[in-house]
Amino acid sequence: MAITLYELQAADDRRISPYCWRTRFALAHKGLAATFVPVKFTEKDKIAFSGQDKVPVIQDGERVVFDSWTIAGYLEDTYPDRPSLFGGEVGRSMARFINMWGDKVQNPNLGSLIIADVFQGLCPEDKPYFQKTREQRFGKALAEVQKGREERLAGFRAALESVRSVVAEQPFICGPKPAYADYIVIGGFMWARCTSPFKLLDPADPVHAWRERMLGLFDGMGAKAKGFPA
Amino acid sequence: MAITLYELQAADDRRISPYCWRTRFALAHKGLAATFVPVKFTEKDKIAFSGQDKVPVIQDGERVVFDSWTIAGYLEDTYPDRPSLFGGEVGRSMARFINMWGDKVQNPNLGSLIIADVFQGLCPEDKPYFQKTREQRFGKALAEVQKGREERLAGFRAALESVRSVVAEQPFICGPKPAYADYIVIGGFMWARCTSPFKLLDPADPVHAWRERMLGLFDGMGAKAKGFPA
Repeated sequence: MAITLYELQAADDRRISPYCWRTRFALAHKGLAATFVPVKFTEKDKIAFSGQDKVPVIQDGERVVFDSWTIAGYLEDTYPDRPSLFGGEVGRSMARFINMWGDKVQNPNLGSLIIADVFQGLCPEDKPYFQKTREQRFGKALAEVQKGREERLAGFRAALESVRSVVAEQPFICGPKPAYADYIVIGGFMWARCTSPFKLLDPADPVHAWRERMLGLFDGMGAKAKGFPA
Repeated sequence: MAITLYELQAADDRRISPYCWRTRFALAHKGLAATFVPVKFTEKDKIAFSGQDKVPVIQDGERVVFDSWTIAGYLEDTYPDRPSLFGGEVGRSMARFINMWGDKVQNPNLGSLIIADVFQGLCPEDKPYFQKTREQRFGKALAEVQKGREERLAGFRAALESVRSVVAEQPFICGPKPAYADYIVIGGFMWARCTSPFKLLDPADPVHAWRERMLGLFDGMGAKAKGFPA
């Protein structure tokens, strides 16, 4: 039976959550069939069965799992005969480090560059909730957060140095083939791609070439996603 | 035959390089006997045989290897039957990401907190070289770089969030047992410990407890190092 992934939906049926994209890629990596259920910010009732209110949530038969990192571990443990997401326990531990880097460095940096675009592209009924909660988080208007992004782009690119140094030497963060650390980082870029026309990467940047490789994986899953092809 | 490690030496025979400490821990992890040759900044002639001018350098029989990351890979490949530094190829790739995080985030942040202390503790003959090259790098006097460090300490601690999130859940960055990613990060802390009395970590921080565990490894190798026990 196929796994069901509940994932965040914006206007035009764009799937925009960086964390849901991590799970989408992890499912594809494991070769697990999945059906996708869109969830708007104002449709928390759809995932109330999970006992909390955030996507991604997966339902796999009787099992319900939420939080992208927990889901990745669940998939690795439950489907050990499928391609590994971590390459072993030491790798799983290091992937957790990179996961937190994505959460605390990559995605907040990205957010400051695209948050007003994210807002613009939400379904109308989601906008008041998003504006209120995010403006509380940032302590200012979303347009103010995003303002001056051209000047802050160099800082974002500098923060990618750990990624760059690896993918300048080999095709993927995890080596000749991608694995979960790659999906962590592409999750952030999918968020941007599906919400904002802002150009994040210099085409000469090795991270740009890596992103192209990532977009092409799994029959172009990322490249085909609705959004703003960069 | 024992491996020889050429490593940076400060006054009072303190061994202060974060990169040499990475190699020290890697050698201990592999259980490889080593002799240590101290090298001052003004003694580059001691490592001229390596064809470049930076420590760490190791000599293993006929083989000469420099650069801490290259050395780690050499040890892993040359001594595959000894405990693994990376836990496999995917782990090696992710460790490279963390290595660059250490180089570009952890150590520069640390440097801004302790650089004047590092200078003070150098051998007298090394001070002019160090002052000139570092002041060129920072674009100001070393005392100016370090000034106001109390106010910048919170930023350094925040930058450790990726480490914290992992070691709050498990003993080491690499899992139940330490491996090379742990040695990357302890390298920076050994640099600080061997050069500066400045207190970097709150004792309640999980990173503090992790550091204690790291200092105790290999018969207290880190704890016994000459410096400023925090």
